[in-house]
Amino acid sequence: MFTDSTSNEIGIVMTEAWEAFHIYRKMSLQRRADFMKTIAFEIEACGDLLIQTAMEETNLPEVRLKNERARTMFQLNQYATFCEEGSWLNACIDTAVDDKNPPKPDIRKMLVPIGPVVVFGASNFPFAYSTAGGDTACALAAGCSVIVKAHPAHPKTSTIVANAIYKAVEKCNMPKGIFAHVFGQSFEVGKNLVMHPKTKAVGFTGSYIGGKQLFDWANQRKEPIPVFAEMGSVNPIFLLQEKLKKDTSSLAQNIAASITLGIGQFCTNPGLIIGIESEELNLFVHDLGKLIQQTNPAAMLHSGIVKSYKNKKSESLLQEGVHLVAESEKEVKENEGLPSAATTTGAIFLNNPLLHQEIFGPFSLVVRCKDLNEMLEVAMHLEGQLTATIMATENDFLQSNNLVEAIKNICGRFILNGVPTGVEVCTSMQHGGPFPASTDSRFTAVGIDGIKRFARPMSFQNWPNNLLPDELKNENSQKIWRTVNGQLTKDVIFSN
Amino acid sequence: MFTDSTSNEIGIVMTEAWEAFHIYRKMSLQRRADFMKTIAFEIEACGDLLIQTAMEETNLPEVRLKNERARTMFQLNQYATFCEEGSWLNACIDTAVDDKNPPKPDIRKMLVPIGPVVVFGASNFPFAYSTAGGDTACALAAGCSVIVKAHPAHPKTSTIVANAIYKAVEKCNMPKGIFAHVFGQSFEVGKNLVMHPKTKAVGFTGSYIGGKQLFDWANQRKEPIPVFAEMGSVNPIFLLQEKLKKDTSSLAQNIAASITLGIGQFCTNPGLIIGIESEELNLFVHDLGKLIQQTNPAAMLHSGIVKSYKNKKSESLLQEGVHLVAESEKEVKENEGLPSAATTTGAIFLNNPLLHQEIFGPFSLVVRCKDLNEMLEVAMHLEGQLTATIMATENDFLQSNNLVEAIKNICGRFILNGVPTGVEVCTSMQHGGPFPASTDSRFTAVGIDGIKRFARPMSFQNWPNNLLPDELKNENSQKIWRTVNGQLTKDVIFSN
Repeated sequence: MFTDSTSNEIGIVMTEAWEAFHIYRKMSLQRRADFMKTIAFEIEACGDLLIQTAMEETNLPEVRLKNERARTMFQLNQYATFCEEGSWLNACIDTAVDDKNPPKPDIRKMLVPIGPVVVFGASNFPFAYSTAGGDTACALAAGCSVIVKAHPAHPKTSTIVANAIYKAVEKCNMPKGIFAHVFGQSFEVGKNLVMHPKTKAVGFTGSYIGGKQLFDWANQRKEPIPVFAEMGSVNPIFLLQEKLKKDTSSLAQNIAASITLGIGQFCTNPGLIIGIESEELNLFVHDLGKLIQQTNPAAMLHSGIVKSYKNKKSESLLQEGVHLVAESEKEVKENEGLPSAATTTGAIFLNNPLLHQEIFGPFSLVVRCKDLNEMLEVAMHLEGQLTATIMATENDFLQSNNLVEAIKNICGRFILNGVPTGVEVCTSMQHGGPFPASTDSRFTAVGIDGIKRFARPMSFQNWPNNLLPDELKNENSQKIWRTVNGQLTKDVIFSN
Repeated sequence: MFTDSTSNEIGIVMTEAWEAFHIYRKMSLQRRADFMKTIAFEIEACGDLLIQTAMEETNLPEVRLKNERARTMFQLNQYATFCEEGSWLNACIDTAVDDKNPPKPDIRKMLVPIGPVVVFGASNFPFAYSTAGGDTACALAAGCSVIVKAHPAHPKTSTIVANAIYKAVEKCNMPKGIFAHVFGQSFEVGKNLVMHPKTKAVGFTGSYIGGKQLFDWANQRKEPIPVFAEMGSVNPIFLLQEKLKKDTSSLAQNIAASITLGIGQFCTNPGLIIGIESEELNLFVHDLGKLIQQTNPAAMLHSGIVKSYKNKKSESLLQEGVHLVAESEKEVKENEGLPSAATTTGAIFLNNPLLHQEIFGPFSLVVRCKDLNEMLEVAMHLEGQLTATIMATENDFLQSNNLVEAIKNICGRFILNGVPTGVEVCTSMQHGGPFPASTDSRFTAVGIDGIKRFARPMSFQNWPNNLLPDELKNENSQKIWRTVNGQLTKDVIFSN
């Protein structure tokens, strides 16, 4: 039903995307925003069919999918509002100084769109990080055309959403090539998309293997292009001693709930819990195990994910010194993930890199360190993470300065006494982190700043006011924040 | 005299840089700023010895070097002032909303330093883009430790500046490893620096071959790291017809001066002039030739650069359909670059990629297009550039919409009726452009935003006010601009 796009077809799609880009980038911010809001409207108009289809393709429950659809529409509307407001363009103006030697010319800078963006959808977020998800919304807000490769695990869902976007394209009188939807089971399609000379950036959410491959292709191009790949994370939680003693059982409850939320299929799922050998840790592990035993298994996204979960979990449990703590005792079906927890020592963890890898699903490994020093060693040897969490009293925190500093080196979001799951869509959210959490820690995949992945600054030197882009004109008719001669202001510039 | 650093020595340097990074990043912005200002002071204190040494090593004239030293100090002081002011941290705060379902946690985000930065100095800017140049200043402002590889063409100059920095380290009581200076003639030293696991970013100014090699190494690491390489550009100037007719002789004068400024050794040197076959173009080429003939040759930076200039120029002139317009008629010495201009047709230029390459030195190629369409073709086939210039009347401009759009795709700075040489150090300056002008067009090597190359956002979720970094605390004691619940403000936050 869904045949892979050929290299010829991709050539046509990219040519159309390139042509549309030139029309779209000159449209007003308001037209971009209207387009994005119309997409949100058209997605809602798909109604139950969209939810039903996604349920069939992803095994995700109805409530979750309805919430995710709402979030997707919220994202589109929020990026639209922000796009229209215009301050994100980072407009800077330095006016001419004629009596300087040599004379200082008038220079004005703002973000401009980078060009056609290829987006690879995520299997675990069929709406919010797929066809009309965060990457698409960011690229459209930035002024780019978008080519989405449908995730092979939910091609029907993706098609329904793509059709909603096509409707919005028509309604808003957008150039045809502004959005394209292509299919590909094989690596070849992804490669053709990334390697095409008219592709100027890539957004990806998924596995390390997939993201790293796209990154490598992009860097092997004659003209390398930026890739923002969000490749998951084990999201370590560090349990400090006083806090653990004080709140043993509520910590076990909150963490067990976070591990098994959505059957462990969130990129911020906590896959690693690091504590210090003690009675409290024993009690915590015991409580955690009990809770895991009582948690129901649930169907995972697709057969490949279940298989991978089972294999990686088994592989982990076969490592020397790794012991199962508990598995869910409920009945489990072939397509379901079984909530599980295991444990090992700090020494074993430090010496076995396999144990550092993400096991996508409802699994977490408790690492028992012999002391705070060994816990510090673990923190220093962890790879880049989307999030890291400390559970600590103020006293714990103040006594663990080196640990806090080590954790700062490895994460994009640093949580104190909370759980990593639940990614708030807001300006202050950083979703991205040092490699391998993402391929460029200087950007985020969630929140308003995500737009900046797909834009670049351009200076306009010595342009007369009437020829400048509206956002850089003296009159500042949209009243955006601009840095004028070093001062942030919404003021008009009075020319001499 | 200057022996290459061994891999062992680099290991020690990087370990010290890593340790120093942890101390330095926690220091106040004011201490960072004081350190940078002290470096500027110590560079001035080097006095004539520094200028004399640089003159011997680079063949650059005294006046130019004195100006460049002043610019270097200006940069250090300007980045220091900006660093201290704090608004560049892009602080964002979203306060908690307890009665949301689920409750929205308090999340606060700001830029944090990326880690130790390796800087490769430029041969053509022995001060402003070398040891204590723009990259070093940006990295120190961001909160990173810095390792400079001295440019092999001016190791003595680099050592004097490095010693000035060491003095500032001592005066300001900075951790020892905050700055290191290493030597390397061989590729191996550069490779060891880029591949070291504690290196977290790279800054480079120089040739395409050098920059691309660093970029490739960085991407081959187990943990790829960002490289900002500014690799030069041919900086095309497009001559539109009405403007050319109106100002033939002044255009020839301004462009000839720009081509030969500093014997053509600026990365913004215009190496390509594109016009349309006409009497005015003939007249322009004639005038340009006359001016070139009357321009004195001058010593170039070092023997490698002279040799490369001569070879590349000869190679260009040997291409079919390329004709010499003029060479300087003045006496020329072995170590001098001879100002020269050549010409070819649009068709030949389009079919010979060798003619698109930068020839570093006082050389420019005039491309005669048969019409505006062919000029558009040329614009569409040019690689990424630091700058592009249009010489146009308003009438010309309005009639060349496609050309203007095509030029927007290829440049970081778009100049109207000016010359590309002369890079103003200001907020609105974009120095960087689509590949191969630089390896990441989303950043700049000049101006305040250059700091952002070496910083990444980090979110702090659910941290109590007293444990947060000062810049994110409720009281905003430094009065920096912050985005609080979506609004840009310098206000204090009143907690509930």
